[in-house]
Amino acid sequence: MTRRGNLFIVSAPSGAGKSSLIAALLKDKPADMQVSVSHTTRDARPGETNGVHYHFVDKAEFKQLIADNAFFEWAEVFGNYYGTSRVTIEQTLDKGIDVFLDIDWQGARQVKEAMPEAIGVFILPPSRTELERRLNSRGQDSAEVIASRMADAVAEMSHYDEYDYLIVNEDFDTALNDLSAIVFANRLHLAGQKKLHSGMLEDLLAD
Amino acid sequence: MTRRGNLFIVSAPSGAGKSSLIAALLKDKPADMQVSVSHTTRDARPGETNGVHYHFVDKAEFKQLIADNAFFEWAEVFGNYYGTSRVTIEQTLDKGIDVFLDIDWQGARQVKEAMPEAIGVFILPPSRTELERRLNSRGQDSAEVIASRMADAVAEMSHYDEYDYLIVNEDFDTALNDLSAIVFANRLHLAGQKKLHSGMLEDLLAD
Repeated sequence: MTRRGNLFIVSAPSGAGKSSLIAALLKDKPADMQVSVSHTTRDARPGETNGVHYHFVDKAEFKQLIADNAFFEWAEVFGNYYGTSRVTIEQTLDKGIDVFLDIDWQGARQVKEAMPEAIGVFILPPSRTELERRLNSRGQDSAEVIASRMADAVAEMSHYDEYDYLIVNEDFDTALNDLSAIVFANRLHLAGQKKLHSGMLEDLLAD
Repeated sequence: MTRRGNLFIVSAPSGAGKSSLIAALLKDKPADMQVSVSHTTRDARPGETNGVHYHFVDKAEFKQLIADNAFFEWAEVFGNYYGTSRVTIEQTLDKGIDVFLDIDWQGARQVKEAMPEAIGVFILPPSRTELERRLNSRGQDSAEVIASRMADAVAEMSHYDEYDYLIVNEDFDTALNDLSAIVFANRLHLAGQKKLHSGMLEDLLAD
């Protein structure tokens, strides 16, 4: 019997280190974890692989998927469509693979409504000063540009309490351990373990 | 602001390795984790320290604690009293210390009724064959004695699904990592983090 994977919704303001944390967690390419792969109608760029960077589909297919209600969310950007396929995610979870969905609070809210068992993780920078430093890492931006990035970050962060877990990324390795603990602990919940170990439990509890 | 500690109820049949796992988790004496210390009216034995091995109290004090409803559970064994003090545990949790309560399913049920936020962890051996081996590790016991130990183990295991998490102790280091992930992940839940980082959140979210 296979455990069903967990869906982790990971959100953060720019500068919190979300993408680096997810990349570090998945760097050894564990067979039982992956980032959700979006669908798009845009052409693949050199080096991009279908099913890895995106699921590349044509517009007719994409519209059929919309009609089939296959997406959690989709959008048209500069004439191309992008979407997060609920069906693809469910199929991955059914294989016992944990899926990471790297989306903002609005996407997170839609996914959580559709799949209340999804686990929300919000990543925060340790202080405003540090966030400002990270948002201006090259030291070349105008005060106006930085203020605008900061306003976006504050808007995103204002939704932190719609998530199940909160990680403060002050020290990268600590934050990575935190994310890892959340992922592994969620595999040990009764319901999943009961399913995964049903044969063993029957053996242990026989009269 | 201090995080409030979590109370972990840890149960298992004999032979599952519960005590070794808790001991291994606490071996470096982390300041923010401890095993719950029971109260008793029996005399301290050589090498036992008050407040470490037991809280040693006299019968009048113990009876006063019973009257004050200070115990989750208490029992009289061979003329001496033993009890698990809810008040002591609450004071420890208030200091931000996680507390481990090493008790059987009956004690676990009482504690969970009194403190529904307590987190139950059940530890299982990987198979019946392995459990039998562990219950007869010296190879000197009669079939009858082993059968009786096995019956006790099955009775305890039959309550596994009253717990929040299930750990299968097949490989000790893996099981220790599992227990550790559960402890650390539970520190990252929104409610606790919100309290611990209230100042930081105010700083981050200021207009």
